Amino acid sequence: MYKATVIVKRRPSIVDPQGKAVEQGAKLLGFNNIEQTRIGKYIEFFINADDKSAAEKEINEYCTKLLSNPIMEDFEFTLEEAK
Amino acid sequence: MYKATVIVKRRPSIVDPQGKAVEQGAKLLGFNNIEQTRIGKYIEFFINADDKSAAEKEINEYCTKLLSNPIMEDFEFTLEEAK
Repeated sequence: MYKATVIVKRRPSIVDPQGKAVEQGAKLLGFNNIEQTRIGKYIEFFINADDKSAAEKEINEYCTKLLSNPIMEDFEFTLEEAK
Repeated sequence: MYKATVIVKRRPSIVDPQGKAVEQGAKLLGFNNIEQTRIGKYIEFFINADDKSAAEKEINEYCTKLLSNPIMEDFEFTLEEAK
């Protein structure tokens, strides 16, 4: 059993309207030192797999097919052993 | 100038319907080894501050007032120097 932590973010070249909206809110609240806010997804789950490479393969597939939009998002993940 | 990376997640005791929905999708696609999916937010931004402790103070306030819902979410952040 492994614990996986995935981060999905938009490619740097792609505009992030959600981040822009949050940044406008920040300015309205008086946070004037904040710049270039970008928002992505943080996903954690447990995966049953025989070994680490099998887990990595399945997570890659899971991220590509379900968790991210491969046209405009990148993902990265870390994996640690869990009991 | 510092680069901050914030992760906002629901407290472990609070049900995460978004994670449950994604996990159902996973099962429909044939990923049967995935369990306890939970989804949070990943936010990155740059912050202008004189020193690290000033930046940390402002980020704490930004997270509490805007980025997270303190009633049901926790946040954590890392900070690194950027040019």
